Amino acid sequence: MNRRKFLAGTGMAAAGAAGTVATAFPTPAISQGRKTLTMVTSWGRGLAGVHDAAQRCADNITAMSDGMIEVDFKAAGELVGAFECFDAVSSGQADIYHAADYYFVGQHPAFAFYTSVPFGMTAEELNNWYYHMGGRELQDELTSIFNLKTFLAGNTGSQAGGWFHKEINGPDDFEGLRFRMPGLGGKALGELGASVQNIPGAEVYNALSKGEIDGTEWIGPWADEKAGFFEITKIYYTSGFHEPGPGLSLAVNREVFDGLSASEQKIIECAAGETNVWNLSQFLANNSAALQRLVASGVQTFAFPDSVWDAFGVAADKVYAENMGDPLFKTIYDSYRDSLVKSASWNALSSGAYAEQRNRVMGI
Amino acid sequence: MNRRKFLAGTGMAAAGAAGTVATAFPTPAISQGRKTLTMVTSWGRGLAGVHDAAQRCADNITAMSDGMIEVDFKAAGELVGAFECFDAVSSGQADIYHAADYYFVGQHPAFAFYTSVPFGMTAEELNNWYYHMGGRELQDELTSIFNLKTFLAGNTGSQAGGWFHKEINGPDDFEGLRFRMPGLGGKALGELGASVQNIPGAEVYNALSKGEIDGTEWIGPWADEKAGFFEITKIYYTSGFHEPGPGLSLAVNREVFDGLSASEQKIIECAAGETNVWNLSQFLANNSAALQRLVASGVQTFAFPDSVWDAFGVAADKVYAENMGDPLFKTIYDSYRDSLVKSASWNALSSGAYAEQRNRVMGI
Repeated sequence: MNRRKFLAGTGMAAAGAAGTVATAFPTPAISQGRKTLTMVTSWGRGLAGVHDAAQRCADNITAMSDGMIEVDFKAAGELVGAFECFDAVSSGQADIYHAADYYFVGQHPAFAFYTSVPFGMTAEELNNWYYHMGGRELQDELTSIFNLKTFLAGNTGSQAGGWFHKEINGPDDFEGLRFRMPGLGGKALGELGASVQNIPGAEVYNALSKGEIDGTEWIGPWADEKAGFFEITKIYYTSGFHEPGPGLSLAVNREVFDGLSASEQKIIECAAGETNVWNLSQFLANNSAALQRLVASGVQTFAFPDSVWDAFGVAADKVYAENMGDPLFKTIYDSYRDSLVKSASWNALSSGAYAEQRNRVMGI
Repeated sequence: MNRRKFLAGTGMAAAGAAGTVATAFPTPAISQGRKTLTMVTSWGRGLAGVHDAAQRCADNITAMSDGMIEVDFKAAGELVGAFECFDAVSSGQADIYHAADYYFVGQHPAFAFYTSVPFGMTAEELNNWYYHMGGRELQDELTSIFNLKTFLAGNTGSQAGGWFHKEINGPDDFEGLRFRMPGLGGKALGELGASVQNIPGAEVYNALSKGEIDGTEWIGPWADEKAGFFEITKIYYTSGFHEPGPGLSLAVNREVFDGLSASEQKIIECAAGETNVWNLSQFLANNSAALQRLVASGVQTFAFPDSVWDAFGVAADKVYAENMGDPLFKTIYDSYRDSLVKSASWNALSSGAYAEQRNRVMGI
């Protein structure tokens, strides 16, 4: 994912990129005990999966509160641009946002951990850290700096390695390769000598088609199929190192949150939690079905060789090192890394080993 | 898991096994719009993880409804025995139960799919089927027969292969092996020639210690450590075929559910959904930490060889075949199997391949 594609995909690029900021917003409207909370998002209404997660949070809140909390839902650009939602909610101009928090690494680099980092956690591992190994408490420390109260509220699942014009046989094949990959993953790929391109979403298809880039990552089969890359090349690397389980966030202005009753606060927490498991499953179901269709249309799936993964690992470490001077980043990194190693160890020996053997036996 | 160990572990064996059934229960008490719903469970209060999931559902419901729904929480044996909760709620004697639905295969064999079946789904795959590939709709068809409205509300994660006195080098090593494994998994193991034992939970430690059995499965590192098997043998198979991702269920008497308002119904749905992701993470976090301690105490982890997994696969198919005469079982099996193949294919190529490479590179 990246910032631009959501804008480009929804026709909001101009409004978002130009930083159009409305200057006056209502504070939460309260009438006869009923509240209206304004929710802004980073997603256009047509954006499957991520918009669905935001909408489900809003619907859950309204339904559970019996309409005592009405959520006034605003897609990207309808009130503020896709990447202005953080500032809008932090400042109290809006009440709630739904977004991927790594869009806000400019505010603090540690926000990356609550979406996804190169060589980081899978969705299941992220939930494990978040709910039971300190992730939520550290998130509270981080988001309170910005006057926010934040919850995990969705996950896209592991993102694909991407589309290439020719096979990748070793890390040297990235030397000079013109590849589209945003964020920390792109930075890491640059360490391998790739010429990393941040092309707006709507232009990627044409750029790949015309040979202006040699490859691109996108999201996963569900979104990649819609983008049509299989019409250009059939070489699809299904597993990538850059975003192994991106979480989505629901953030409430902290003063607004503190002003809610305990039951209303719990409704928001559970609305987000239910969406978290529902949305990961939604991506998994749709990616599974889309992969079948892609393969049926002639797409071949590939995996990077070990030497490439080794190089990804070295490059990812360099990207982390750049931020270690920030004490809170380091605290959160240490907690995240410790949890990752522990949960990965058990998962590899249990569900990982199981799935591998079951799939082998069943011919999956 | 099995029925007996929950009883034995909580001192409720006598009450449960003797089938003590209270003969009069209150219908939901309603006063000034406030309701009290009686919730019975299959878990003793001391039972970590599963009891926690039930308690979290109850707490979520009470908190979100601002006390309009009070949940009168009853652990196993406090109102009915651990395995009487299905009948109690189906008949309207109690309002809600929390349990593992494969305890109720006597009522209908298809209940097994909503907990776990040999060579079945991991937790993530189960959620995928449940929320987005037909599992929930079929559950509704199944549970309505019994006057219930049921939700997934927890997951223990992949259960371990178990503790052995000597290594398993091939399927022949199960011939005559006296092994404790309940349920369909035990049935499948019997197909391999094992002498399957269903020893009550409290007696397993002694039986293994005295050599009356040659091995036992239990749950996973968290519970296995508490049971103390590492004091007897250091040979621990971490991955098993019998219960790869057991779901837990919250079931409401259907008339009671239909009598709730739309917001109250949504509160129950989201209380269960939030617990589903929270509880799987709880097991993963605690299993991870316990595994580290077990290994530090000298336990060695093992994986069954391919030939054993092949034999498990053949045996599991035989167990399914026995129930295919029931049309609803076959319908649910077909849906479950189709979803499993699809989600497993994508998971293997994405998060599975990723985790394997990341772990290799990071030395996990």
